[in-house]
Amino acid sequence: MNEAAGRDDAPLALMVRAIDEPGALHALTRVILEHRANITYVDIAERREDGSTVYFELEDVPSEAAADVLVNDLEALNIVQAVERAPSFQKVYGKRIIVIGGGAQVGQVVVGAVAEADRHNIRGERISIDTIPLVGEENLAGAVRAVARLPRAVGLVLAGALMGGEVARAVREVREKGIVVLSLNMPGSVPDAADLVVSDPVQCGVMAVMAVSASARFDINLQRGRRY
Amino acid sequence: MNEAAGRDDAPLALMVRAIDEPGALHALTRVILEHRANITYVDIAERREDGSTVYFELEDVPSEAAADVLVNDLEALNIVQAVERAPSFQKVYGKRIIVIGGGAQVGQVVVGAVAEADRHNIRGERISIDTIPLVGEENLAGAVRAVARLPRAVGLVLAGALMGGEVARAVREVREKGIVVLSLNMPGSVPDAADLVVSDPVQCGVMAVMAVSASARFDINLQRGRRY
Repeated sequence: MNEAAGRDDAPLALMVRAIDEPGALHALTRVILEHRANITYVDIAERREDGSTVYFELEDVPSEAAADVLVNDLEALNIVQAVERAPSFQKVYGKRIIVIGGGAQVGQVVVGAVAEADRHNIRGERISIDTIPLVGEENLAGAVRAVARLPRAVGLVLAGALMGGEVARAVREVREKGIVVLSLNMPGSVPDAADLVVSDPVQCGVMAVMAVSASARFDINLQRGRRY
Repeated sequence: MNEAAGRDDAPLALMVRAIDEPGALHALTRVILEHRANITYVDIAERREDGSTVYFELEDVPSEAAADVLVNDLEALNIVQAVERAPSFQKVYGKRIIVIGGGAQVGQVVVGAVAEADRHNIRGERISIDTIPLVGEENLAGAVRAVARLPRAVGLVLAGALMGGEVARAVREVREKGIVVLSLNMPGSVPDAADLVVSDPVQCGVMAVMAVSASARFDINLQRGRRY
């Protein structure tokens, strides 16, 4: 049981149910700091009248015994109602590809992307496809920029029939932050700003998954700038 | 400019670029606590060698002037490299519907859901459709349970050809936490556990969006237990 005792690979994921008041997160992070654990992910999942659920993923918790002490110390806080251990989002949902654009095109890109992700996930990967249909240059640019701060997002597909200007600038920004960007073939400057352009939406969805998969023999660096 | 001066409606959304070390979040939350602001959302969006980007949404910041002081106080911390104001995820991506199941069915549900969300988003709503194709009772149950702690998730669609047992138990749990659950018509006990069963996957996707939309004339309470 050495594997289970050491916590080197997987983060310690905790759901902490606490009273919703200013200072609650500050009190929780004090306990985590006292244990010298590093917070790699945090979010507030649920907010209700009677409390919030704060979800943490923690690194540098050396052992199962240390994890138990940390859980006990959190439970000892007055504001804490319950602490539960949970599988991490990375383990459950994995990498995320975000598809943004017009309803007709987003739907077809997702058909391809989900079918391809299915094949990878059956073999043990975890790839999620997330979408939002949107219109308008400002809305689209805002959604593109927000991808860079979405947890676990690694790829972006622009699925529309006309995108340029501020959207193309946003595409270049998120590419600099390490997001792989695919675009349908369309009027406007977005295709020129993307890593890769694919005309057929189903094929574009499939290639987006191949580009971010750990197992596919598809090197985005060899495809950059191409159009299919 | 009274509207802009008061901050009653929209949360104050901040991206804080900070050195990635134990205690960083504790230090940031101290400043926020000193301002008596309430943290309604937080996540760590980006982690790199040289630092992390922590994203906050804050309530109870009384004015633009108070927001500026808060930003300055955060910037004054040694660990902070930069603070940027950003539009909130709620504003950019809105409510989330999660579609989980087999690749073939998930793809078709999303075609319906994205087309319907498109129509709502054009009229000013923000509804996102997020998916993961998965197989296996344990994987599916884990993904269903995780929906309850996904930020902004309000609806769930089970899109498979056979789901029951632990998945059905997970469905009942997330329904108790306020998630609306739709299921395709299929063998297994999941359809009985869902709020609503729809046989056609495109129709199921459309109805999922109608069920969570603020504008649709569709009351899930009147539809509960029905099969279409």
